[in-house]
Amino acid sequence: MSTKKFLLSENQMPTHWYNIVADMPNKPLPPLHPGTKQPISADMLQPLFADELIKQELSTEKYIEIPEEIQDKYKLYRPSPLIRASELEKALKTDCKIYFKYEGGNPSGSHKPNTAIPQAYYNSKQGIKKLTTETGAGQWGTALAFACAQFGMECEVYMVKGSYYQKPYRKIMMNTFGASVYPSPSERTQAGRNFLASNPESNGSLGMAISEAIEMAVQSDEIKYSLGSVLNHVLLHQTIIGQETKLQMEMAEDYPDVIVAPLGGGSCFAGLVFPFLEEKFTKNKSFRCVAAEPASCPKLTQGKFMYDFGDTEGYTPLLPMYTLGHNFEPASIHAGGLRYHGASVLCSQLLKDGLIDAYAINQNNCFKAGTLFAKTEGIIPAPESAHAIAQVLAEVERAREEGRSKTILFNLSGHGFVDMMAYSDYQEGKLQDVGLMRKVLKKALRK
Amino acid sequence: MSTKKFLLSENQMPTHWYNIVADMPNKPLPPLHPGTKQPISADMLQPLFADELIKQELSTEKYIEIPEEIQDKYKLYRPSPLIRASELEKALKTDCKIYFKYEGGNPSGSHKPNTAIPQAYYNSKQGIKKLTTETGAGQWGTALAFACAQFGMECEVYMVKGSYYQKPYRKIMMNTFGASVYPSPSERTQAGRNFLASNPESNGSLGMAISEAIEMAVQSDEIKYSLGSVLNHVLLHQTIIGQETKLQMEMAEDYPDVIVAPLGGGSCFAGLVFPFLEEKFTKNKSFRCVAAEPASCPKLTQGKFMYDFGDTEGYTPLLPMYTLGHNFEPASIHAGGLRYHGASVLCSQLLKDGLIDAYAINQNNCFKAGTLFAKTEGIIPAPESAHAIAQVLAEVERAREEGRSKTILFNLSGHGFVDMMAYSDYQEGKLQDVGLMRKVLKKALRK
Repeated sequence: MSTKKFLLSENQMPTHWYNIVADMPNKPLPPLHPGTKQPISADMLQPLFADELIKQELSTEKYIEIPEEIQDKYKLYRPSPLIRASELEKALKTDCKIYFKYEGGNPSGSHKPNTAIPQAYYNSKQGIKKLTTETGAGQWGTALAFACAQFGMECEVYMVKGSYYQKPYRKIMMNTFGASVYPSPSERTQAGRNFLASNPESNGSLGMAISEAIEMAVQSDEIKYSLGSVLNHVLLHQTIIGQETKLQMEMAEDYPDVIVAPLGGGSCFAGLVFPFLEEKFTKNKSFRCVAAEPASCPKLTQGKFMYDFGDTEGYTPLLPMYTLGHNFEPASIHAGGLRYHGASVLCSQLLKDGLIDAYAINQNNCFKAGTLFAKTEGIIPAPESAHAIAQVLAEVERAREEGRSKTILFNLSGHGFVDMMAYSDYQEGKLQDVGLMRKVLKKALRK
Repeated sequence: MSTKKFLLSENQMPTHWYNIVADMPNKPLPPLHPGTKQPISADMLQPLFADELIKQELSTEKYIEIPEEIQDKYKLYRPSPLIRASELEKALKTDCKIYFKYEGGNPSGSHKPNTAIPQAYYNSKQGIKKLTTETGAGQWGTALAFACAQFGMECEVYMVKGSYYQKPYRKIMMNTFGASVYPSPSERTQAGRNFLASNPESNGSLGMAISEAIEMAVQSDEIKYSLGSVLNHVLLHQTIIGQETKLQMEMAEDYPDVIVAPLGGGSCFAGLVFPFLEEKFTKNKSFRCVAAEPASCPKLTQGKFMYDFGDTEGYTPLLPMYTLGHNFEPASIHAGGLRYHGASVLCSQLLKDGLIDAYAINQNNCFKAGTLFAKTEGIIPAPESAHAIAQVLAEVERAREEGRSKTILFNLSGHGFVDMMAYSDYQEGKLQDVGLMRKVLKKALRK
């Protein structure tokens, strides 16, 4: 057997995050104030975020140093392994080489602590006592709950109602780390009460939960808000994934022809892909980058590039992004982490410029791919991550048709240990393949 | 920050298992045939086990080579990390150094694949098509389901009824790997029907589930039985844990004063401790070995050393061990993997000879310790593993009282991602501290 796992030692862990803005051929358009339609300034973000995070949000510096305190916390679970999916390759009878970066071997079981830790750190350093946030499937909420515990902060999580009841273990995990968790929409906020008034049966959405978390944060100087994806500084923190992977691909003496990651808001995708794109920009390297999104929430493949709110109630600045409309309420699929109406500004600009590709995938295909992966590689993937695996299988097929042997790299963003009801539904044939009707889309974008 | 994680590369992975029988000052007494009371011979085990496993069960050779095919499968998740619990140390304000070997970062989330893989391999090599087994909390069943998937075998699991309903995610995990799972006692076997007749409300026990799995296995030449703990060959396979740890303690330039592991049947304990005991036997090294068992099933601290059956129905040979009686039905605590009436022959002999210690721990203490560990080290431990952590906290206290700084090493056998209901019960104050009444014990031993 050739080498299966490529491991870095702690002192090989990257010491800087990579800021893709510095290298992008077309810089992202600025966020706008919804009233004045003028670009927002740093001080307008201050009620929500710690100063250092705002600085990173607006930064154009190529590398930003990771403070030692954050590096220390990263070492609780980083560097993460790069693994050759040799057993999957055998099962597929392919001569493609498949590698995955495994981000599930940590406290919350996903890539989310990579940004939760710095966000908690910078807020704590600024004297903030409490963070509020939203969570979809619960990975992000768990990560932030853990990070807050590490810095002795309080944590209040608004969890999309559909997931809250689908994934009770996630709530308990957050409670175990000391966080308070509420199903969203809730009666605790004006935004929540508005959503409930217009639809008492609402399953919730990430957009709604964001509105609730923001509303709670702005009520006190000791509370700030924390977002698990979409924003520049969040994507920035995740670039540690791809930077490690570059070193590990060198160890494997290989280089990817195709890089695949799931895309909800964009942080998992950005984490793996952006540091490789750096080599496309500066070293003329050639490879395809593919985002895998759910067919039920296909902002990249069917959304429109436009200025839209990041949340449902319209509390955030307007962001230039591919969106299904901030009022869009996706079907209650199991990949809760991908149920977001828009894609991050950075990913949206890259798609617009043709630098990345996107495909939409049906739920049943994801679980089929996830089950094959479990039986071969032994890791039961999170439903979000299974989107990437389904896309990898499609890429293997494509390589076969082209008569080529490719090196395929993907981000296994998390494990599915707390998503087993989803696998049960799949095994019992209860999962629906919820696609997006054009009509629904048009209506959402008109609002 | 000093080094947090001590990692081995794949080519540093041990290539032999360590057989402690070769070094034990008093060899274990032989298993007896229940009818003749004579030592059993290899051929009497053949209806149950593959030939190679029987050879290992009876072997007195010090090192047994790990076949390359098994090493390849081990590399799906091994070597596993040794981690310095630096954040826990800080929270405890101790100058003890605490290390844990983390066996939860693999398919089933526990140490169990270390023996599931060789058992499936040797059976598959001998042409066996199907394995039957029991499982308590589900770690073992998951591991065997995964291992059978790797070698294209069928797998049939009898899961202790209490756990079957407490831990539904475990069942789905086994199904995902392709196994069939039945709550035990079931109507599928004569043994199960007998148990149900005498107690229709039975929560089941490992002993009962073993009887059912054995009964199914002996019905066909193409089916064999597989046990997840207790037997010599199972403990043998787990010694890869301690052998890796010895190399990693060298990397850390440290050596344990105390080694702690949970004990259900004994395989997790043996896996870490036996390779260190080798240095006690041959190099005169000095350290304490401590088994942590549940107060509700305290065979080591309150059981009797005697010949007893390994299962409830009395299908197995008689084994010389510390036991609460094979009819003993422990309370339905959350650490299902520790609910076994006896301790392995090897661990029992070592306890009898004063080479290891044992402590019984209440359920609530375990979850208290587990929660502290989660908040500090970020890993939510399985309830079984939390027993070891509770004991580590006691050892830290003891060191403080003695005015000493010690190096404490423990086996974090698995994560608790699929045990979250247990944490929820703990948080809501619903957990009972079920101790063992003397009366119950006497009754069980009289039967």
